[in-house]
Amino acid sequence: MKRKLVAAVLAIALGAGTAATAFAQVKPEQLVKQRQAKMTLQGKYWGPLAGMLKGAVPYDANVVARNAGFLEALSKMAWDGFDESTKGVKSAALPVVWTDAAKFKQAQDQFQSAVTALVAASKTGDEAKVKAAIGDVGKNCGGCHDSFREKS
Amino acid sequence: MKRKLVAAVLAIALGAGTAATAFAQVKPEQLVKQRQAKMTLQGKYWGPLAGMLKGAVPYDANVVARNAGFLEALSKMAWDGFDESTKGVKSAALPVVWTDAAKFKQAQDQFQSAVTALVAASKTGDEAKVKAAIGDVGKNCGGCHDSFREKS
Repeated sequence: MKRKLVAAVLAIALGAGTAATAFAQVKPEQLVKQRQAKMTLQGKYWGPLAGMLKGAVPYDANVVARNAGFLEALSKMAWDGFDESTKGVKSAALPVVWTDAAKFKQAQDQFQSAVTALVAASKTGDEAKVKAAIGDVGKNCGGCHDSFREKS
Repeated sequence: MKRKLVAAVLAIALGAGTAATAFAQVKPEQLVKQRQAKMTLQGKYWGPLAGMLKGAVPYDANVVARNAGFLEALSKMAWDGFDESTKGVKSAALPVVWTDAAKFKQAQDQFQSAVTALVAASKTGDEAKVKAAIGDVGKNCGGCHDSFREKS
C-alpha cells in the first residue's frame, strides 16, 4: 500500500514534468518552462496592481496585500532556473544573462527588494505609499526586461 | 515622466499577457495558461519532496521548508482561474469540475490543508512527521487528479 502510494506520488511528480531527482537532472527545457510559468503567474498578480497605479482598476488594499504576498513568493522562483544547461534553449533571455552574471544578480536583488518593500507598504494602509511601492516594482520589472529580455 | 513610467509598467503587464483591468476581463485562454503555469511550478517544488519520500533524493530539511512555503503560496493560485468562461478551453480539467463544484471545492480545501500541515511539520525538525506530511500532500494531489483531471 505504501509502495503503491509512493509510486502514485512519483507518477504525479513526473507527470508534472519535474524529475523527482536532484535538481541538476531536470531537463533544460523544463527549467525554461518553469521560468516562463513564473512569468505567467507574475503577470497575473502584477497586472491588477499596474491597473490600480494607472487608475484603470479601482484601488483595493486587500487585493494589493494578497497579490504582493504572491509576488514575493514568485519573485524567488525563477533564478535557479537560469542554469548553464539552459543556454541553448530558445527563450527570451538575452546573452547578457550569462555574460554579466553580476549585473543580472543585482537586478534580481533590486527586484526582490522592491517586492519586499511593496509587501511592507501594503501593511501600512497608506494608499500613497502603496502606489509609490507599486511604481517602484514596475520600474524594476522594466529595468530587468530592458537589459535581460528580448523585446516582445 | 510619470506618464511614461505608467505606460511602461502597463506594457509589461500586458506583454505578460495579463489584462491590467478587472479580473473578469482576462481572456479564458489566459486563465487556463495561468492554471497550467501553477501546475508547472507546483511540479517544480513538489518533485524533490516526492523524491525524498521515496529515498531517491537525500532528505534535506531546508529544501523541504523552502519548497513547502512555495507550495503553500502556489496552492492558492489556481482556483480563481476555474472561471465559467474557461469551460470551452482545451485543458485537462474534467467536466466534473463544473458539474460538482462542491466536491471540487472540498478537494481544493483538503489539498490546501495538507500543504499547510506540511509547512507546520517542516518547522518541527521531525523527519518522520515531515515525511508523513509529504505523503499526505501526495495523496491529496492524487485524489484531486483522479477525480478532476484527465489521465495524461
